[in-house]
Amino acid sequence: AQSSVTLYGLVDAYVGSVKTTTAGQSLTTYGVNLPAASGGGGLNTSRFGLKGSEDLGGGLKANFLLEAGFDPSTGVANNYTSPYTGTTSNAIFGRNSWVGLSGGFGEVKLGKMWTPFDEVKGSGAAAFDANIFAPATFVWRSNTYQDRPGNAVYYSTPSFAGLTAAAMYSFGENKTATTSAGKITAFNVAYATGPFAAALSYQTEKVSGAFETAKFLQFNTSYDLGVVKLLGAYGRVKDQVANVDKTNEYQLGLDFPVTSTFTLSGGYAWSKDDVVAGSDIKRKGFGIAGLYALSKRTNLYAGVNDSKTEVPGASDDKTRVFAVGVRHTF
Amino acid sequence: AQSSVTLYGLVDAYVGSVKTTTAGQSLTTYGVNLPAASGGGGLNTSRFGLKGSEDLGGGLKANFLLEAGFDPSTGVANNYTSPYTGTTSNAIFGRNSWVGLSGGFGEVKLGKMWTPFDEVKGSGAAAFDANIFAPATFVWRSNTYQDRPGNAVYYSTPSFAGLTAAAMYSFGENKTATTSAGKITAFNVAYATGPFAAALSYQTEKVSGAFETAKFLQFNTSYDLGVVKLLGAYGRVKDQVANVDKTNEYQLGLDFPVTSTFTLSGGYAWSKDDVVAGSDIKRKGFGIAGLYALSKRTNLYAGVNDSKTEVPGASDDKTRVFAVGVRHTF
Amino acid sequence: AQSSVTLYGLVDAYVGSVKTTTAGQSLTTYGVNLPAASGGGGLNTSRFGLKGSEDLGGGLKANFLLEAGFDPSTGVANNYTSPYTGTTSNAIFGRNSWVGLSGGFGEVKLGKMWTPFDEVKGSGAAAFDANIFAPATFVWRSNTYQDRPGNAVYYSTPSFAGLTAAAMYSFGENKTATTSAGKITAFNVAYATGPFAAALSYQTEKVSGAFETAKFLQFNTSYDLGVVKLLGAYGRVKDQVANVDKTNEYQLGLDFPVTSTFTLSGGYAWSKDDVVAGSDIKRKGFGIAGLYALSKRTNLYAGVNDSKTEVPGASDDKTRVFAVGVRHTF
Repeated sequence: AQSSVTLYGLVDAYVGSVKTTTAGQSLTTYGVNLPAASGGGGLNTSRFGLKGSEDLGGGLKANFLLEAGFDPSTGVANNYTSPYTGTTSNAIFGRNSWVGLSGGFGEVKLGKMWTPFDEVKGSGAAAFDANIFAPATFVWRSNTYQDRPGNAVYYSTPSFAGLTAAAMYSFGENKTATTSAGKITAFNVAYATGPFAAALSYQTEKVSGAFETAKFLQFNTSYDLGVVKLLGAYGRVKDQVANVDKTNEYQLGLDFPVTSTFTLSGGYAWSKDDVVAGSDIKRKGFGIAGLYALSKRTNLYAGVNDSKTEVPGASDDKTRVFAVGVRHTF
Repeated sequence: AQSSVTLYGLVDAYVGSVKTTTAGQSLTTYGVNLPAASGGGGLNTSRFGLKGSEDLGGGLKANFLLEAGFDPSTGVANNYTSPYTGTTSNAIFGRNSWVGLSGGFGEVKLGKMWTPFDEVKGSGAAAFDANIFAPATFVWRSNTYQDRPGNAVYYSTPSFAGLTAAAMYSFGENKTATTSAGKITAFNVAYATGPFAAALSYQTEKVSGAFETAKFLQFNTSYDLGVVKLLGAYGRVKDQVANVDKTNEYQLGLDFPVTSTFTLSGGYAWSKDDVVAGSDIKRKGFGIAGLYALSKRTNLYAGVNDSKTEVPGASDDKTRVFAVGVRHTF
Repeated sequence: AQSSVTLYGLVDAYVGSVKTTTAGQSLTTYGVNLPAASGGGGLNTSRFGLKGSEDLGGGLKANFLLEAGFDPSTGVANNYTSPYTGTTSNAIFGRNSWVGLSGGFGEVKLGKMWTPFDEVKGSGAAAFDANIFAPATFVWRSNTYQDRPGNAVYYSTPSFAGLTAAAMYSFGENKTATTSAGKITAFNVAYATGPFAAALSYQTEKVSGAFETAKFLQFNTSYDLGVVKLLGAYGRVKDQVANVDKTNEYQLGLDFPVTSTFTLSGGYAWSKDDVVAGSDIKRKGFGIAGLYALSKRTNLYAGVNDSKTEVPGASDDKTRVFAVGVRHTF
């Protein structure tokens, strides 16, 4: 059965420090893949998975993907927390588990997969969209969207001259005698031609019929000048948390390929909550990282992120991350 | 080491609805692989595993099987709940994990494996013995037997002209100063010749020395007429729950191969509890499903199950399931 | 991607009994891979893993290892319990998960790996260092050292004419406003030439800045006479538990290759706690086991361990283990 399944993965570990300043009190923690930052890795979350694609003839294919996430500093698995019930369960495939069909009509998936919102969310991110370095990491409110709610049906179109689109519906499965079921919907449209790329995405989250619907919108764009690649992102969040009417958030950055094996990338992100009662809340931060390729599969990296939240009437809350690490794919 | 281990699996996901009526109140839930039905898949529980067989010479082989089960709609793993202590633990191989030897003498396994009762229990089931469509799914009391108690020694005979037999003993490992250990034993005898097959199986379950022994017996048979295959099953449960002396249960069904790639299967099941005090409890239901083969490894399916329990002195409790799905093996 | 990752594993299951006598009361439990002994296997803990090594040129390699442990009698996974917080989390790779580089300079690993103390701890152990038979199993206080604390950086030297050394530092990552972070450090030096081998190892464990540092030292040696191999081990533990100043522990044993496929091994271990207040505590035990090779990958084994702890002013606490089993690697 070896030919019908491919085993693949990524292990990403770093040594670093996270300094957090809350109410004027600083605390610096040193370690490997710090929980305070991203335990799963510095650039990407560590993972291993099984995937396969069977040719059914006539352009039709059956596809599946089963992917676990983990923290290499402890071996601890990514679990599944239902966005609808908040219950956490021991997952064997904490990132993806779906089966589906693809062909001329596009692709259909059933199970747990990234939302179309998630699929393009990082496309405008500087610092390699790294877990711990990307400028928006400690700044954007929208980072807490549901990236893989599960119980979902997904459809993506084929590419029409660089234009693609995708939609997903996740069933809450939590209907009761008095409330209707929750649901999460997500959409994206992406376009790429030559050096230019752009993506618009939208996601709504309703935990159950008794709750308000949070709305996430994001627009990303990039332009590759050759010497540098320009990156831009705009996001808007509505009705996600109490007392915040909406949040507008931004990020600007650039990738700078210094040599064929070494790239620098950095940027700046900011976000402002329009608060219903009280003063607005502002967050801003920058992140910069260098990525050195030992091979196509193995990279060394180093970077820094420095972010703060302006707390009305008090001193700023700050986060500062330094790390050096290695990422290996297989 | 690639040659000494085979990676295999099955991913089964559906979209469907489950309508349950309890005390006259109906509630319909829509979703992907609904927990109310079988989260692990519509036809079969989703799984992935590792297996291998080493030739030791002289017909002797060393064999192992390690198999995890999961729900593809969430990636959540099948865990292990001890039948003796009721404790649930995080399992990496929630379905099977055993090592053993096979040869002219038959096969011996040590670890966690299906009981011989389980091995043949579904052999007379209509609607492809599907998790959510089989007629007996919401009807038979015996469905709650322990299918993989673990801590077990297993033996199966070689085939004698179509006749095979198997036995298993599971150690409770829960002896205390005042009670002896629990145990689960199981046996089967199966016979197949030409179009005819039959299997008799028996299982006893004693949680600990302080508890009564529940007894499960089942007889399955099938006859393949070519145009259709006839399926029949009879089960008897004794001393499984308080106030029910014994339960007799039945199922009749047939498989109808419409074309070389499309098969319909359906049947009817019923069950009656002989209650010690009060009125007897009756359950009945039917299930029908269609299975279309896109290839040897990939199927589309659709089906329905409609079952009810006659509650003495009250309105019936009902369950109705509709689903369409895809099953892919690798 | 098949060429960049190797899937490997070991399944070890036995049938046996454990008799424990506490305060004069005996209780004997029978079963498969008994939790009272080692649930994971008789000789070794059952496991499966993924590993790979990528040649980066110039002698440099990128390496990774991801390894899960489990109990084949139940399929239950080895989890991760933080030595610093005591919190247990669901691990997908409960034994090892690291990534690193190796070359002329030696090897560096980041993540969770065996401590250098653990790497050589069993090198002087009789009865194949078996989980349930090794003489020191129920005797040595040092068995409760942290063998894979995680959050660690590891370095090992290349071999200098048979001499190697390794060091590891594990970050507590649990600094608070009032206490500094915990840490675990470990070192080893090992030497092997012809029939002679010896290893010295040292480990310190400090849960947090508010706790005392436990210290473990061990010296192992072996000499292969051909007819038999002599094994010796000495250990010292300091400040590990309250009221025990230090513990000295010893083990003597020998391996006896009876035929090319059958080996007997056995030995005797003892340990004495120097108690601060009250009488010293003494423990002693022997273990003997036979290992028969059905092939290079498959072994049958049988053995016994008989150990006791002399409790001052009371009857001895005793443990007696019998087991026969099979170990298969893939």
